[in-house]
Amino acid sequence: MKIGILGSGMVGKTIGAALVTLGHQVKLGTRSPGKSDVTEWAKASGGSAGTFAEAAQFGEMLFLCTKGEATLDALAISGPSHFKGKVVVDITNPLDFSRGMPPALLTQFANTNSLGEEVQKALPDARVVKSLNIVNCEVMVNPRKSGGDPTMFVCGNDAAAKQSVIEILKSFGWKDIIDLGDISTARGTEMMLPIWVRLWMATKNGYIGFKVVR
Amino acid sequence: MKIGILGSGMVGKTIGAALVTLGHQVKLGTRSPGKSDVTEWAKASGGSAGTFAEAAQFGEMLFLCTKGEATLDALAISGPSHFKGKVVVDITNPLDFSRGMPPALLTQFANTNSLGEEVQKALPDARVVKSLNIVNCEVMVNPRKSGGDPTMFVCGNDAAAKQSVIEILKSFGWKDIIDLGDISTARGTEMMLPIWVRLWMATKNGYIGFKVVR
Repeated sequence: MKIGILGSGMVGKTIGAALVTLGHQVKLGTRSPGKSDVTEWAKASGGSAGTFAEAAQFGEMLFLCTKGEATLDALAISGPSHFKGKVVVDITNPLDFSRGMPPALLTQFANTNSLGEEVQKALPDARVVKSLNIVNCEVMVNPRKSGGDPTMFVCGNDAAAKQSVIEILKSFGWKDIIDLGDISTARGTEMMLPIWVRLWMATKNGYIGFKVVR
Repeated sequence: MKIGILGSGMVGKTIGAALVTLGHQVKLGTRSPGKSDVTEWAKASGGSAGTFAEAAQFGEMLFLCTKGEATLDALAISGPSHFKGKVVVDITNPLDFSRGMPPALLTQFANTNSLGEEVQKALPDARVVKSLNIVNCEVMVNPRKSGGDPTMFVCGNDAAAKQSVIEILKSFGWKDIIDLGDISTARGTEMMLPIWVRLWMATKNGYIGFKVVR
C-alpha cells in the first residue's frame, strides 16, 4: 500500500521504516525535506521523503506522527483535501512540556476532549483511527520488544477503517487488540500517557506495554 | 491491626470484609451508622460500624473509600486530628458523573493535580498512599479474579507507609506491585479511570486489571 507519514521525528521514521520492511511504499512528510537526517532515513530505509502536502497526497493511508502541539497545524499545512476518504492513523499525544518533566496533557485536549477528536473534526472527510500512542515507537512496530504480549487499542468512528488499522497492527506483531469504540474513546488512551511517563521514570524502562488482564 | 474504613459503599464494605477475613479488627465509618445495610454488613462480616470520626479514631491504618466528590468533606467530618501519623490508603477517584456516562475526571483534581495530592494536603500529618483505585473492588481484594496477575501501583511521600500498604496488598494476593514515587504520581493512576470505564463499556467485563508488561 502507499502510505504517507506526517512527521519526521523518531516516531515517524521508526513507523515509516517498519512499513517499508513490510512491503509498503512510504513517503515521509516533513517541514524540511532536504534536511540530512531525512535524506539519510530515505536512503537507509528505502522510503522517500517530501513535504507534508506531498506525503498526504501520496498515501492511501496516512500516519500522524507529529508532536501533539503541532498536529493541527501540520494538518492545515498538509491540505485537508488530501485526506478525503482516507484512513488516518493518529499516533499523536497532547503532551505539555511547558512546565518541564513530567509532562501534563494540554488542557484543551484532555479529560473532556482529546487530540484524536480534534483531528477528526479538522478532517471531517477522513476516517481517523487513534492507536499506538500508548507505547514507545520501537514497541509500536515490535510489541515483543516489551518482553510480552501487551494490548493495543483502536478508537474511531469507522468500523472498516479500524479493521484496516488492525491489519497493520497485526503485521507489526500485535496479537491482543481491543476496539474501544468511537473516536471519543481516544480520551482514555491519551490519558494513559501520564502513567506511562511515571512508569518510565520509576523503572527506567521505556520498553513497556500495558496488558489488559481479563 | 485495627483498621478504619471511611465510606460504606460497595468499596468500603468489600475492603472491610476482606480485612476482617485476614484477621484485622475493622470499623466501617459512615454518615448513617444505624442504616440496615451497615448493621447487616457488620453482622455478616464480623466488623463493626460507627461514624466517620469513630472509624478514623479507631484505625491504626485508614482506608478512604468515599466517592471522589465527597472525600475532602468526609475528611473534615472525620476530624483531621484522628489521622495524625497514620497510614491513609486513598482508594478514591475524582469521577465526574454530572454529564452522565462515561464520567470525566473532576477538572480541579485532574491532569495537573490529583485527589491523592489534595488528600495529603488536607491531612498534612498523615502518611497518604494512593493505591487500588484502578480496579473493581472485588479485584482489589482478589486480583486473581481478573483471570491473571495484574500490576498494582503505590504512590506516596513516605517509604515506610508505602511498605506497610504493600504488605496489605500482598495479603490480598497482589504479586506485581510498582512504587511509582511521591503522591503526585497519583495523577497517573487516577487518569487511568477513563480507559478502565471505556474497557468496561467495550468488553462488558468489569473484572479487569492492568499488567505492566516489561
